[in-house]
Amino acid sequence: MRTLNMNMLDKINSPEDIKKLSIPEMNELAEDIRKTIIHKVNLIGGHLGPDLGIVETTIALHYVFNSPQDRFIFDVSHQCYPHKMITGRKQGFIDPIGHPEISGYSNPAESKHDHFVIGHTSTSVTLATGVAKARDIKGEKYNVIALIGDGSLSGGEAFEGLNNAATLDSNIIIIINDNEMSIAENQGGLYRNLNFLRETNGTAENNIFTTMGFDYYYVEGGNDVEKMIEVLTEIKDINHPTVLHIHTIKGKGYKPAEDDKETYHWQLPGFLDKKETGTPVETYDSLTTDYIIKRKNEGEPIVAITAATPGAIGFSKDFRKELGKHYTDVGIAEQHAVGYASGIAQNGGKAVLGVLSSFIQRSYDQLSQDLALNNSPATILVYWGGISNADMTHLQTFDIPLISNIPNIVYLAPTNKEEYLAMLDWSVKQNEHPVAIRVPFAPVVSSGVEDKTDYSILNKYKIEEQGEKVAILGLGTFMSLAKEVKNELIKKASINATIINPRFITGIDEELLDTLKQTHDLVITLEDGVLDGGFGEKISRYYGNSTMKVLNYGGKKEFTDRVPLEELYKRYRLTKEQITEDVIKTLSL
Amino acid sequence: MRTLNMNMLDKINSPEDIKKLSIPEMNELAEDIRKTIIHKVNLIGGHLGPDLGIVETTIALHYVFNSPQDRFIFDVSHQCYPHKMITGRKQGFIDPIGHPEISGYSNPAESKHDHFVIGHTSTSVTLATGVAKARDIKGEKYNVIALIGDGSLSGGEAFEGLNNAATLDSNIIIIINDNEMSIAENQGGLYRNLNFLRETNGTAENNIFTTMGFDYYYVEGGNDVEKMIEVLTEIKDINHPTVLHIHTIKGKGYKPAEDDKETYHWQLPGFLDKKETGTPVETYDSLTTDYIIKRKNEGEPIVAITAATPGAIGFSKDFRKELGKHYTDVGIAEQHAVGYASGIAQNGGKAVLGVLSSFIQRSYDQLSQDLALNNSPATILVYWGGISNADMTHLQTFDIPLISNIPNIVYLAPTNKEEYLAMLDWSVKQNEHPVAIRVPFAPVVSSGVEDKTDYSILNKYKIEEQGEKVAILGLGTFMSLAKEVKNELIKKASINATIINPRFITGIDEELLDTLKQTHDLVITLEDGVLDGGFGEKISRYYGNSTMKVLNYGGKKEFTDRVPLEELYKRYRLTKEQITEDVIKTLSL
Repeated sequence: MRTLNMNMLDKINSPEDIKKLSIPEMNELAEDIRKTIIHKVNLIGGHLGPDLGIVETTIALHYVFNSPQDRFIFDVSHQCYPHKMITGRKQGFIDPIGHPEISGYSNPAESKHDHFVIGHTSTSVTLATGVAKARDIKGEKYNVIALIGDGSLSGGEAFEGLNNAATLDSNIIIIINDNEMSIAENQGGLYRNLNFLRETNGTAENNIFTTMGFDYYYVEGGNDVEKMIEVLTEIKDINHPTVLHIHTIKGKGYKPAEDDKETYHWQLPGFLDKKETGTPVETYDSLTTDYIIKRKNEGEPIVAITAATPGAIGFSKDFRKELGKHYTDVGIAEQHAVGYASGIAQNGGKAVLGVLSSFIQRSYDQLSQDLALNNSPATILVYWGGISNADMTHLQTFDIPLISNIPNIVYLAPTNKEEYLAMLDWSVKQNEHPVAIRVPFAPVVSSGVEDKTDYSILNKYKIEEQGEKVAILGLGTFMSLAKEVKNELIKKASINATIINPRFITGIDEELLDTLKQTHDLVITLEDGVLDGGFGEKISRYYGNSTMKVLNYGGKKEFTDRVPLEELYKRYRLTKEQITEDVIKTLSL
Repeated sequence: MRTLNMNMLDKINSPEDIKKLSIPEMNELAEDIRKTIIHKVNLIGGHLGPDLGIVETTIALHYVFNSPQDRFIFDVSHQCYPHKMITGRKQGFIDPIGHPEISGYSNPAESKHDHFVIGHTSTSVTLATGVAKARDIKGEKYNVIALIGDGSLSGGEAFEGLNNAATLDSNIIIIINDNEMSIAENQGGLYRNLNFLRETNGTAENNIFTTMGFDYYYVEGGNDVEKMIEVLTEIKDINHPTVLHIHTIKGKGYKPAEDDKETYHWQLPGFLDKKETGTPVETYDSLTTDYIIKRKNEGEPIVAITAATPGAIGFSKDFRKELGKHYTDVGIAEQHAVGYASGIAQNGGKAVLGVLSSFIQRSYDQLSQDLALNNSPATILVYWGGISNADMTHLQTFDIPLISNIPNIVYLAPTNKEEYLAMLDWSVKQNEHPVAIRVPFAPVVSSGVEDKTDYSILNKYKIEEQGEKVAILGLGTFMSLAKEVKNELIKKASINATIINPRFITGIDEELLDTLKQTHDLVITLEDGVLDGGFGEKISRYYGNSTMKVLNYGGKKEFTDRVPLEELYKRYRLTKEQITEDVIKTLSL
């Protein structure tokens, strides 16, 4: 393990300690914080570039303002590590034992210096505006400061927030941390203005922030603690809505991160010792990009779309280059992404939007109104869906209730590679339905046999193995659990269960469910997501007027925070042993 | 019935006919169209002010461009009446028999001149960008024109759309119809810039549209057909993203609508003969505003919030004036509204956000991340929820699955005035939970007895009438149906059913449900919303491992379009006769 020598950080236990430092000492502290960020990310992974870029600004903020009385609200929390270190949580970054205590996100449960749990982007200005409003109504006085990256500005909630914040007749300070990057490149007309403002050292007359009525300050040296202290001192206690636009270097102080800002936005543990990997492994990501390129080369008017997370879904730089005009990154703008896909699809293009489970929920109204109501035959690929040890801000268990209760959308859950490719191909070629596919969040499984199913016949479940007494509906990646349960039931209760692959999340195969009544007493549903509003409940509803018993298995409606997967499975009774136990009890065997 | 004398409109059967007209003839046509709009709205209700304001621009659009090859996309459809009249659908406005055929919203099923079903705001730029992208990928040539009101610009999706549209290197024309109004007054910093642009006849250097890279044109005379033809001719076939900002008069040509733009944004049938009403009737709206004013006067730091629809929820002009700083209209910005309420609540303010069922779905991510994850004790009042004869763009049946599957939120369904007031009072005073209340969409019902329930004891259902064999869970306003079914069961099957008032949509009263097993064979759930992902399915899931039979009643997962309520109730078997029939069959009586 690397050892850390941090004379200056050692002295910092609270913001009070910052206020005693000289400028050279603050610069020394900045270097200590940088080393510590790199150390922590190398040990347990996390956000690297954005945190390295905001060190000096954070020190200056704590020097000039008085947290927690003055409120700092960090957008998306990608830039909160230095703040956490300064506010009594440095052990969580230094000491491996302390790591699990301190999350990568803003969290009031950890510290009075954090005011919200934040993990999705573009919310800080909105939340800060509410905080300022409550302050004013209660007749209190302090500064409310939102710190938001340039990338997060493209999200609609950020704009809605700016629009309202500008009308406050009191203090609110919005710091735009402009590091010239979103997660990947910035996208959109807004960034033309940010460029122009940087080029003119903030003096350009045409300024999106002043158009809205904000007072505006620009600091080129966002990584110069002295300059930051100067400007923050000037605007402290300002009595009207103010934007402070600062220019920082993403990844500052770690050359690989400065040189390749996208790759080092976030890193997995061990990146310092990362070696070149061998032959690329086939993944659902690579299956997807290979398919899209093939169709593009065949002349299909296909457009692959991402909302700012190309790296997370395997839309590599090579892929983007090869697609050229057939690729759009709309920036952090999931609402637009869905509506844009619908517009393309309605006009004869083949839109394929890839989005993470946790972020698809940012576009419910667009899924309903722009897409489903118009029956636009776009394809939405939902990545990373399923129960996981994720942070509570990034749970992946709500996409099934979110998508599957909207009319017209066909939501599919493949269980293996061949099904996935058949579903994807059907979806792209058909012109009747909006289709979403839950891309398996797992290593590729192959049946070895091409899937020739005609998916235009909706809601047709597949009997994988015919048995009796108990039927197990294993949705998507939980097909493997279904098979485990079957084996356990043979062993423990001599029951040869039927295994069913529903494939369609959004509909009921009434004929098949009715047939089961003849030779089965119990139906089990397994879904890798929250039960409430999900797939299994619909099966329970269907059998409500019959004597068929039904057991639904899936996640509980709760926000879990970095709970180990095994623990969650046990909590939700999602192990073969627990399910078998329940079956035996239910059938009174 | 009023008679219409419309020499010029009589001659118009398609856009081709517009192209033959002289300017004086077009002005005559404009007057005919105005008379027809007023005639139709007086007969069946609809959007008045926005349509009256856009007549000349619509005529000019059809004169200059070639629809449907050139694509017009009307934001929110509040301005599509003149377009409909010109594109072969005038009978739907003139002839009462034709009215039901033609909706108030853009609809491709009606005409090839409509490209999307649109009813929620702020989507047009996004959809148009997708249409333009597909055009470019397919190598086609035509104009893509989005027409969006100034009010709709505050919605996040509009900004996200502009941000991406600005990067197209091809034709897209975005017409900003600036009538200086949203549904109510415009709200936010953005409108400062629109004012400034109007004041400078579009010459101000500081221009939000040019900041983003759009070419920009301004026309003061948006109601001058000749001027509009001139500028549209100039920008037709333009090869880069262009904003045309026009100034129009909302309500033009009908003085009451010009004088009171908010009231005449939309009108009910018969407004021409409207008489002063007598004593105001008590409604759930008035109960709400009376309560808020009372608490404000008691010194509570309460803030009543709307996202641009104060009129629809009874936040009258007097109410707003009386609240002063305790009132915020955030404009069309539901995402911000929810996050803003959370910010207020987290900082000790008492946020009460009123929002329509159809629009709460514009803020799922904010309900989940900004509000629920933070357990912010804000109050969300959901108005107009329930199965209805609404347009397919404004269905009110999805709020239960939307809200109730998010952890931490307590969603309540009062059945009468006393319960509503007790829930509202509890919600505003407590500090533990985000609370949503489904405001009954019905005349006020009173129990006559103050409700002293302690709602901090969550998920406690109330037995309204103890019976046996069959238990009926009547959620919210469907309590009345529950009582009807009970009477019918007594009559037809001599069953004295138990009636239960769940009150909590978001949780299961396990103790009560278990108790029912002893003396009941069947549980019926009644909910005024879509069944999929809703309340009843959770009851079915709970009883899945028991012999209790369960029948869930509610809406089907579908987009219905202006279907009479009675027909929907029959379709969903939501009549006392049908339910009784099902009970008898299920119990094999």
